[in-house]
Amino acid sequence: MKKLRPGDTIGILGGGQLGRMLAIAAAQLGLKTHIFAPENDSPAFEVAAFHTCAAYTDQRALSAFARGVAVITYEFENVPAETAAFLAALCPVYPDVKALKTSQDRLAEKTFLRGLGIATAPFADVEDADALARAIAQIGRPAILKSRRFGYDGKGQAMIREGADLSAVFRSIGGQPAILEGVVPFTREISIIAARGKDGAFKAFDACENTHEHHILARTIVPAKLSAQAGDKAVGIARLIASALDYVGVIAVEMFATDNPRAGIEDIAVNEFAPRVHNSGHWTIEGAATSQFAQHIRAVCGWPLGSVKRYGAIEMRNLIGAEAGTWVSVLGQEGASLHIYGKGEARAGRKMGHVTRVG
Amino acid sequence: MKKLRPGDTIGILGGGQLGRMLAIAAAQLGLKTHIFAPENDSPAFEVAAFHTCAAYTDQRALSAFARGVAVITYEFENVPAETAAFLAALCPVYPDVKALKTSQDRLAEKTFLRGLGIATAPFADVEDADALARAIAQIGRPAILKSRRFGYDGKGQAMIREGADLSAVFRSIGGQPAILEGVVPFTREISIIAARGKDGAFKAFDACENTHEHHILARTIVPAKLSAQAGDKAVGIARLIASALDYVGVIAVEMFATDNPRAGIEDIAVNEFAPRVHNSGHWTIEGAATSQFAQHIRAVCGWPLGSVKRYGAIEMRNLIGAEAGTWVSVLGQEGASLHIYGKGEARAGRKMGHVTRVG
Repeated sequence: MKKLRPGDTIGILGGGQLGRMLAIAAAQLGLKTHIFAPENDSPAFEVAAFHTCAAYTDQRALSAFARGVAVITYEFENVPAETAAFLAALCPVYPDVKALKTSQDRLAEKTFLRGLGIATAPFADVEDADALARAIAQIGRPAILKSRRFGYDGKGQAMIREGADLSAVFRSIGGQPAILEGVVPFTREISIIAARGKDGAFKAFDACENTHEHHILARTIVPAKLSAQAGDKAVGIARLIASALDYVGVIAVEMFATDNPRAGIEDIAVNEFAPRVHNSGHWTIEGAATSQFAQHIRAVCGWPLGSVKRYGAIEMRNLIGAEAGTWVSVLGQEGASLHIYGKGEARAGRKMGHVTRVG
Repeated sequence: MKKLRPGDTIGILGGGQLGRMLAIAAAQLGLKTHIFAPENDSPAFEVAAFHTCAAYTDQRALSAFARGVAVITYEFENVPAETAAFLAALCPVYPDVKALKTSQDRLAEKTFLRGLGIATAPFADVEDADALARAIAQIGRPAILKSRRFGYDGKGQAMIREGADLSAVFRSIGGQPAILEGVVPFTREISIIAARGKDGAFKAFDACENTHEHHILARTIVPAKLSAQAGDKAVGIARLIASALDYVGVIAVEMFATDNPRAGIEDIAVNEFAPRVHNSGHWTIEGAATSQFAQHIRAVCGWPLGSVKRYGAIEMRNLIGAEAGTWVSVLGQEGASLHIYGKGEARAGRKMGHVTRVG
């Protein structure tokens, strides 16, 4: 397995804030980056040595991209699996196509987790509206219908309560293959941001506790308020997932913690995992010895993982939509680290930046 | 005075590692950068939204550059003053041309410092070889002959001991206008990295203690081993210089500390100042609440200065020339933060990267 050297070029699929922060971390380690993204105004283009603005289906552009880089990674899991497979025939891709495909399909993901003996919400396959009725009979109400693919930040989801018209709900998420999930009576939402190297080394940052507003991450505090046992269990689950996938890179595992377990739900249940750096890990830029971005770069380069030591009590808040307008006051706050992503319009629900405080 | 906003573009003259780290700091705050540098392989080009590769005398390129940016700064003091003055007529330049010109000429710099009542090594103007003999008679031996302009890392300098042939020494530094300086019997070399905002606000990082090898900075530790009084005096001197220049941006003041003052030399004497971010301040990336790079960006944008809180005992070591080859072992060291600048060839004496440890 080839190890990269400073001066080599890393290819990154996706040009949003995650790609931008990956490119910055790579630059600090002396690496060049080449961003491949379809959007002309991709924020990551501004900090990369090279960029290609082309569709993920443009095989000529993909081939040229793959020929010019030493390794390829990605900033989001909705890169088409066909794109990743096409590239993987030309250049190493980390995390690999298996991890990507598993995370793209909620049914495959939950089935994979169940196969590892990891607790999840109860779930059922919903191919069509008829299957939805059967799934409701099995799981009960309330339950959440989620499209199997391309959902994020609450998109493609619908809560089903008593009296809901099942056909209408199925149509509301686009009438596409879906999964029905039981509602986990969680106390808190947590995430484990961890990394696995090519040599199998594994390191996890301290557990993050996340608050969502309108299905979008609003705030992360670290450490999460968890018992030591629950924290260990959460890290163990992340390690099990990464090992089972023979994973290389940073992985983010979103979990529910329940103080009062009910039948069928343990104290830690996995919601989903993302094969990439994650919003709830942004605090590591100032708050840990190695940032999640540098850690991911180290892993995909075949380099040793860095220290995950945390420097203090952490609070990270996203700046969403018009909240970005608070940047002036944030700059004046002692101990607040401002990050703005370089996006154009501050549309509602758009992640424009974040603020980290290390206490 | 106009304040910049995220999304605006900062112009930076110079494309080396300082420009590169400035560009990264600007990107984290949502700003674009435009690097102007004559060298085609400038490391800062790789992390900037825009770059112009042209000579500092290319007025057409300079005009286009100035029209496309909201403010201009620079990474090194050897930008021709004529270039800065040309640009300043088109766009705000910080630090301003006066600070730049003063720092470019050792005689003007020392005269300016003396005018503020700040202790320096004894010095004398050396226009020609005859003047050198008079200067030696005044200052004594040993003494150091330094070219007035374009010296750095020991270049354009010669030590004059007993028996030296003065004409030969004058020729050895190029026979150009020079300054003769007495040798300060210093105990340690220190630097103050400070910033002054457009509103006159002033903040200094803790004093750095610097070790040079072959006239190149090798190692910085923070805090410097100084008495509280000497530390306060050093910061006061930096503040006095910045105020006198009505300075905007980060300034680095190199000083000598003497435990046993002799006649004419106080406990803190200034060697020189640089109107820019400085190698001895690189530790602030991991070791302080605000990095010197972010602080400089804040200042030239008209934004409030950030906290200069230090996070622990600091050691920063440069990776010079072949030392860059140690990057693999550094990556494996707990608590070591590696920075590689993306330069091509690891020539002897070339600054290739640095390593910071926060204890």
